[in-house]
Amino acid sequence: MTRYQHLADLLAQRIEAGLYQSGERLPSVRTLSDEHSVSISTVQQAYHLLEDRQLITPQPRSGYYVTPRKHTPPAPAISRPAQRPVEITQWGCVLDRLNEEPDSDAIPFGSGSPDMCQSTMAPLWKAMTRLMQAQDSRVLNYDPVYGSLALREQVARLAIDSGCHLNPADIIITHGCHEALMVAIRAACQEGDIVAVESPAFHGIMQKLRGSKIKVIEIPTDSSTGISVEALKLALEQWPIKAVMLVPNCNNPLGFIMPEQRKRELLSLAQCYDIAIIEDDVYGDLAFEYPRPITIKSLDTDGRVLLCSSFSKTVAPGLRVGWIAPGRYFDRVVYMKYTGTGASASHPQLAIAEFIKSGGYQTHLRRMRKYYQQNLEKFTCRVREYFPCGICVSRPQGGFMMWIELPEHFDSVRLSLELSEAKVQFVIGSLFSASGKYRNCLRLNYGLPYSDKVDQALRKLAKAVECAMLECQMQIAEENRQAHANR
Amino acid sequence: MTRYQHLADLLAQRIEAGLYQSGERLPSVRTLSDEHSVSISTVQQAYHLLEDRQLITPQPRSGYYVTPRKHTPPAPAISRPAQRPVEITQWGCVLDRLNEEPDSDAIPFGSGSPDMCQSTMAPLWKAMTRLMQAQDSRVLNYDPVYGSLALREQVARLAIDSGCHLNPADIIITHGCHEALMVAIRAACQEGDIVAVESPAFHGIMQKLRGSKIKVIEIPTDSSTGISVEALKLALEQWPIKAVMLVPNCNNPLGFIMPEQRKRELLSLAQCYDIAIIEDDVYGDLAFEYPRPITIKSLDTDGRVLLCSSFSKTVAPGLRVGWIAPGRYFDRVVYMKYTGTGASASHPQLAIAEFIKSGGYQTHLRRMRKYYQQNLEKFTCRVREYFPCGICVSRPQGGFMMWIELPEHFDSVRLSLELSEAKVQFVIGSLFSASGKYRNCLRLNYGLPYSDKVDQALRKLAKAVECAMLECQMQIAEENRQAHANR
Repeated sequence: MTRYQHLADLLAQRIEAGLYQSGERLPSVRTLSDEHSVSISTVQQAYHLLEDRQLITPQPRSGYYVTPRKHTPPAPAISRPAQRPVEITQWGCVLDRLNEEPDSDAIPFGSGSPDMCQSTMAPLWKAMTRLMQAQDSRVLNYDPVYGSLALREQVARLAIDSGCHLNPADIIITHGCHEALMVAIRAACQEGDIVAVESPAFHGIMQKLRGSKIKVIEIPTDSSTGISVEALKLALEQWPIKAVMLVPNCNNPLGFIMPEQRKRELLSLAQCYDIAIIEDDVYGDLAFEYPRPITIKSLDTDGRVLLCSSFSKTVAPGLRVGWIAPGRYFDRVVYMKYTGTGASASHPQLAIAEFIKSGGYQTHLRRMRKYYQQNLEKFTCRVREYFPCGICVSRPQGGFMMWIELPEHFDSVRLSLELSEAKVQFVIGSLFSASGKYRNCLRLNYGLPYSDKVDQALRKLAKAVECAMLECQMQIAEENRQAHANR
Repeated sequence: MTRYQHLADLLAQRIEAGLYQSGERLPSVRTLSDEHSVSISTVQQAYHLLEDRQLITPQPRSGYYVTPRKHTPPAPAISRPAQRPVEITQWGCVLDRLNEEPDSDAIPFGSGSPDMCQSTMAPLWKAMTRLMQAQDSRVLNYDPVYGSLALREQVARLAIDSGCHLNPADIIITHGCHEALMVAIRAACQEGDIVAVESPAFHGIMQKLRGSKIKVIEIPTDSSTGISVEALKLALEQWPIKAVMLVPNCNNPLGFIMPEQRKRELLSLAQCYDIAIIEDDVYGDLAFEYPRPITIKSLDTDGRVLLCSSFSKTVAPGLRVGWIAPGRYFDRVVYMKYTGTGASASHPQLAIAEFIKSGGYQTHLRRMRKYYQQNLEKFTCRVREYFPCGICVSRPQGGFMMWIELPEHFDSVRLSLELSEAKVQFVIGSLFSASGKYRNCLRLNYGLPYSDKVDQALRKLAKAVECAMLECQMQIAEENRQAHANR
């Protein structure tokens, strides 16, 4: 990052924090030049950049002023999905996503990958290389079906941070959280069952349920506190629900952390109706707050929680190392794991175990939490600047996913097609509903390194949204006019 | 290997090949010393070794003679399993196997792993190390759900050797053959279906069927020509069978290669009854004959064969790289793969692709084919020497698995418990039947490097078999006596 960009970011943060208020005059170029020991031209360039970002406005012969601020867009309201079990659709859209040609020119706001370029990854690379150089024979051999003991010990240690007291023998290593979730479903449910999910919910989870011939009931979910325990209770009274599947910490896609009290209430409800809880904690270690939030599993007294996680979001997805602590479903999960894929690969397990044991993982987490939080601040600021009024934006408390809700009639599928030509990719909201709701929503990965290219892509996206919203409004107005004329 | 061991092996091979016949006098120590340009004491040591192995017998003041030969034990007769669909049992025994504490002192005749210590593995280690040293970012990233294109291209190239003309787009990389078989079952069958299998059949396959709530019908199988097409036809006439699942090349556990004509007949039958064929070719590249035998898939004209394989038996199981060419079931297999585990790990795929592309894999295969064939010769020779009469031994045509059939009432479970204390491990035969048949059989991995320790373990096994057979005979005699007395 150049000096002027650095200065511009600093000033933007001050504006963001209210140190320079809306409409207020900013310090003169000379003052800033003295204050930050930079050249006059550096300050000028920084001001031009902020002007480009519409954060400040020049007044001829007077200086720069903070652009009168737009209001922060509200968070999405609690969702209102269909209150009955439905067959899951949307596989076609997921497949389209899988079939997308990788395009290194495109800006992948739709990606589910973390940033993997930080220097704190170095100890992991070293551990991986060392095992190879030593021609460690464990790399070639079958691991136990439970996974490497070295890694299970480290996972048990890490789990303490989320309030869980697990033994290595309680844990099974899996091929990413993907496999953990699948074996959890197959262990706790059968064909024809009904499972309750958050709404919106991660499309991967829903496709797994579909593949297991399970119906889902989508439960209203608040974008800051999570699944509505009250609505879940109503659903449990009405339907023979077998399990609830959720991402209570740094939710995907909404980013909330479910408050501890709600977690307790949810567990009580599950105990009362004797259902299983499949808890996906894959983003949990990336909570901005520290110490990290507890898992529902940490409150579990009778083994009904199947806790699933992985190192795909905290470290790297390509290593395919996940894990499950399945409580009372342990034996069934072992069976599903054995019949599904047999043992997991040894090398990445050993390397990650070493990465954790040496403290490298924790250092990396500290870096990533800070990185994502800073990126979120930039993103939120730019979204507010660039996007039109009338949208809602989630307030992520961890992870790297942002959820944007556009007006009700908006078609994000059309927008997605239009923007993929302009090399801007995002995930359409309807993927996050069993029945195709949230067509007016989008999910963005704000974890991308914030470059000029990313900034331009975000502008393009905002511009396209603005145009589409205008079109949409005109269409509605026209429809109203015709309806009025026909009356 | 020392000089005298080398000479002893050479002489053993000559005896084996009939160059020195049963009871014939062997050349004098001096003659051999001259002939092979080795010292007198080397020849003496070689002769002592052969004497220990009971291959030759000293006659005082006359020299060494070939020990009068035992007859080669016959191959097992065609199997006669129950001719009706059955629920699969045996999970308990499989789990016991999975839970066995690894014991580096024990001789693992029960292992399913190939020998991975040959120098032809060096290029693979190099490729794996290089990717790590270069910090190749592909290692960390999600691969496409289909797997790495680089590897799919190489798999398509290799498939030509088995008569298959595949495109990379016909292939999906999986987490070992384990996952390939599981997605094949889930793509071609449903809960409650019936699937035909060989008998004996690999326990991993049967547990996958059990996990999918599928019944099996075990089809009589010949130890040298494979599944009885006639018996399969009778079963198809009688039951609504959905698929047949088999290992036609270098079968596990019997080691046969199904003759090409039989493969054609099986395919015609499958076409006639419109069933799927799930073909496990995981040992196919290890056939002793060259060029390697064709797959049934290579004869397939309407996409009904799901060909499953991996690099677990040819290279190393710990890398967990397998693949499937699922024909007309492609879309369903992609779905099952996505919902089951998502993408596969990138690093081992890239390394194996490089290993094949550079020719290293083919060099390794040549070495391994020869190695296993030589090991088989040694093993067969020793089994004949050490084991009592009254047993049947398979005649493997590739791979590294040997099947030994003991008299009908023999209990290999008891033998297994007894021998595991003596640090000798093997797989009990009943694991290879859905309904617990083959309790009188055992499977041995003859791919272990043939050391003195391995030799001693084989002797221990043979001795224990002999004792148990004697006990068994005495018990039967006693029962007959009592039955006679009670008459």
